[in-house]
Amino acid sequence: MSSDHSKATHPHARRTQATNETRLRVRYAETDQMGVVYHSNHLIWFEVGRVELMRQMGFSYRDMEREEGLFIAVAEATCRYRAPIFYDQEVVVRTRLKQVRESVIIFSYELVGANDGALLAEGETTHIVTDSSMKVAALPGKYLHAFRAAIGK
Amino acid sequence: MSSDHSKATHPHARRTQATNETRLRVRYAETDQMGVVYHSNHLIWFEVGRVELMRQMGFSYRDMEREEGLFIAVAEATCRYRAPIFYDQEVVVRTRLKQVRESVIIFSYELVGANDGALLAEGETTHIVTDSSMKVAALPGKYLHAFRAAIGK
Amino acid sequence: MSSDHSKATHPHARRTQATNETRLRVRYAETDQMGVVYHSNHLIWFEVGRVELMRQMGFSYRDMEREEGLFIAVAEATCRYRAPIFYDQEVVVRTRLKQVRESVIIFSYELVGANDGALLAEGETTHIVTDSSMKVAALPGKYLHAFRAAIGK
Amino acid sequence: MSSDHSKATHPHARRTQATNETRLRVRYAETDQMGVVYHSNHLIWFEVGRVELMRQMGFSYRDMEREEGLFIAVAEATCRYRAPIFYDQEVVVRTRLKQVRESVIIFSYELVGANDGALLAEGETTHIVTDSSMKVAALPGKYLHAFRAAIGK
Repeated sequence: MSSDHSKATHPHARRTQATNETRLRVRYAETDQMGVVYHSNHLIWFEVGRVELMRQMGFSYRDMEREEGLFIAVAEATCRYRAPIFYDQEVVVRTRLKQVRESVIIFSYELVGANDGALLAEGETTHIVTDSSMKVAALPGKYLHAFRAAIGK
Repeated sequence: MSSDHSKATHPHARRTQATNETRLRVRYAETDQMGVVYHSNHLIWFEVGRVELMRQMGFSYRDMEREEGLFIAVAEATCRYRAPIFYDQEVVVRTRLKQVRESVIIFSYELVGANDGALLAEGETTHIVTDSSMKVAALPGKYLHAFRAAIGK
Repeated sequence: MSSDHSKATHPHARRTQATNETRLRVRYAETDQMGVVYHSNHLIWFEVGRVELMRQMGFSYRDMEREEGLFIAVAEATCRYRAPIFYDQEVVVRTRLKQVRESVIIFSYELVGANDGALLAEGETTHIVTDSSMKVAALPGKYLHAFRAAIGK
Repeated sequence: MSSDHSKATHPHARRTQATNETRLRVRYAETDQMGVVYHSNHLIWFEVGRVELMRQMGFSYRDMEREEGLFIAVAEATCRYRAPIFYDQEVVVRTRLKQVRESVIIFSYELVGANDGALLAEGETTHIVTDSSMKVAALPGKYLHAFRAAIGK
């Protein structure tokens, strides 16, 4: 489901921002009576992209929750809807890391048509790293390192 | 949101099966491109009804999870769709307790139009009582008592 | 489900911005494994509030779609998550009209705890009025009038 | 996303029941606070499998709706939950055609773990073929033929 666009073999990899492209197909349940995808599903797809970007960066968000007791909670989400998305359409979620600090991570997203590359929506989510009691926490070194590498720094 | 049809003042209350009627309004997000409610939402509404029946029986399912560490996990669910349900329609979820044993609870449901009483769907869910590690557990006395009273025994 | 806070009897009603407060209870299906409401549900609740505000303004969005062939499509949505929202919690969706032009409508929202009034989330959605083929359309006079009255102009 | 297990090259293909296996990964939004997949999502996954089985059979359900004005509406759905399904787990939806008549189609499903093949859930959905006004309709010859071939008759 996930295309790996890692630039690991590129000599300037360190300076290149990681991008993940994950493809999904619109489910019937995601449409509404307007005949298009209901607008809250875009946030769910952003999450699919975000998780695949982290997998591409070398770790699993599931394990980060399970093993470290750390959560990447959503603090803010924005989506701009550029074109209707239809049932059974194949959509690419293009996810990039926009900013990372010890306890704050910002991702940006584009949804594009898999066939024609048309821009369907774009958005951004801001996250706070928390522990299991929802208190702000700092990303441990190994994650921070992976995030910084992914942003090209 | 919940109509209380408790028969507490009725002299034969002990023998009368409790019924809960909870009213909800169809959300846009619950429709699909067929112009009707997508069929998995009925199971979510059954849960709304089931939780309100428990509240009517005298306890909160939330507290049962929190304070007792007990869960009522779904083991089987069936729904028969009798008529399409439309956006913005008001629907009554009529929930009854069908059977209760120490570790097994069966609820039955009817979805009816709030205005015309037309039968829209009916179904049944079978639940297993579990502890937080998903092992089968027995309902503590106070809950078992409430469930038995609700089924009219 | 909807508290009517219409200021119709107030002498300066025309200058007062309409606010709708609609109460809902968090469903189990709306939680995620972090133990809180999953963040895309807030957009669904915003829609519940928006539809109730329109009903309070004197018309039904359902009929607007059915009878006029007009849709209020979402062009942009933003949500800022202020506090976790928990299962079974009662939440008030407070909806206001922020701006209205012939083909653009902006709503703002606050989600607050029904018991303590605590701010849980706030957001904004921008909508384009379209016809059934997704082309931009102008709000007919009677709706534009209602929207302008609601914004206090 | 869909593994094609068509037996088209097999000499007894006509007598072999078609099976589709489609793989999906559990989304965070699909979990609930019990830490497992919420039980209504299984029905959505059944639909994903059903649509992929039809694609494997040689046609797209989307086009059947669009071009023929025919719908495969759900009349009954049942799911038996055999084991909890967890976030980020890869699940195979195994879909078979169980019965087909001119206006009634029955599909059966198994959800199995992609790694260990463990049975996670099984179910069945019964569908009525309808026209766009929800009246019962007969499957046109070309679809009926494809369905009968898929059931091995």
